[in-house]
Amino acid sequence: MTDRFVEVILKAIEPLKGRNDLRVETDDLSTLVIGAPEPLFAVVEDCFVKAARETDHVVLSAIFSRGCPGEPDDPICHPMPPERAAVDPVVDTATVEPCGIRVAAQFALYPLGIVEYMPIIYREIQATKEAKVFNRGKHFCTRLDGNAHQVFAVMRAAFDRAARDAGHVVITATVSKGSPTTV
Amino acid sequence: MTDRFVEVILKAIEPLKGRNDLRVETDDLSTLVIGAPEPLFAVVEDCFVKAARETDHVVLSAIFSRGCPGEPDDPICHPMPPERAAVDPVVDTATVEPCGIRVAAQFALYPLGIVEYMPIIYREIQATKEAKVFNRGKHFCTRLDGNAHQVFAVMRAAFDRAARDAGHVVITATVSKGSPTTV
Repeated sequence: MTDRFVEVILKAIEPLKGRNDLRVETDDLSTLVIGAPEPLFAVVEDCFVKAARETDHVVLSAIFSRGCPGEPDDPICHPMPPERAAVDPVVDTATVEPCGIRVAAQFALYPLGIVEYMPIIYREIQATKEAKVFNRGKHFCTRLDGNAHQVFAVMRAAFDRAARDAGHVVITATVSKGSPTTV
Repeated sequence: MTDRFVEVILKAIEPLKGRNDLRVETDDLSTLVIGAPEPLFAVVEDCFVKAARETDHVVLSAIFSRGCPGEPDDPICHPMPPERAAVDPVVDTATVEPCGIRVAAQFALYPLGIVEYMPIIYREIQATKEAKVFNRGKHFCTRLDGNAHQVFAVMRAAFDRAARDAGHVVITATVSKGSPTTV
């Protein structure tokens, strides 16, 4: 949200350059990043933090998807072995290093292709409530407030856990830093 | 994407004021609009066009949802009778009045709670290809280019048709005007 948006965006997406572990496509609407969950979530957070350091008010609008039928089964997408990929949201948010950027965020989880998807959503809402950055439930999404790194870790944990029960999982997320609106 | 973002946003959401047919909640992250499909899609488009007329580059990031279990069954949400609500994307985009705002957009459709959701998605991708504003398929979404009014009509048509087969339908949409990036 600045007249300098071109410069801010180009700086923000610098961490995506020259990565062999990610497939990256940027156009006028968005940047697509394909890869395993670990480097992917890490680099999206890195891009956001870079933009947040460049300007007062910045918003990331992101969609995370895994297991979408019809998309090529790219070898770089394969997650790490379960014993390495396992995350516990409480442990995770307690051990990650805060990056000093305070954000407000809201996210929603969509497990696809199964009739019993609401129990997964309710379970993940409940798990998210345990996180320090949980703020409140909103219509159609959950609100988080706190350190950017912890906020990303909580969304990542819900994404990973939901994927154990549904082959195709989507998260929509809005992450905002520096809104002048007080709530 | 302007230093004047507060003024642009406040002007953009003016059409939401004093509406008896919509429930509206704005906070620092987003504006929630609850209502029947007709006034809801119309007002979101109206808000976007207002912002687009105020500044060079503006992006709408929107999520449309219907039939979400656990959300209150608000009487204002009930769609019009089927004979009035029925839309045909080709007829629709041919008859709507272009508003003079050219946009690029991408959207994805998520029918929830059913095992056979991919046939609905493939059918709607196919139907969208018939629209004049169809540009191309991208990873995880479909790209549209053209008049804002026609772009909104195409997304609305996919949303309505998918709702005949799935109780809970979500669309994620990015609509952009004036990006300096040429594609």
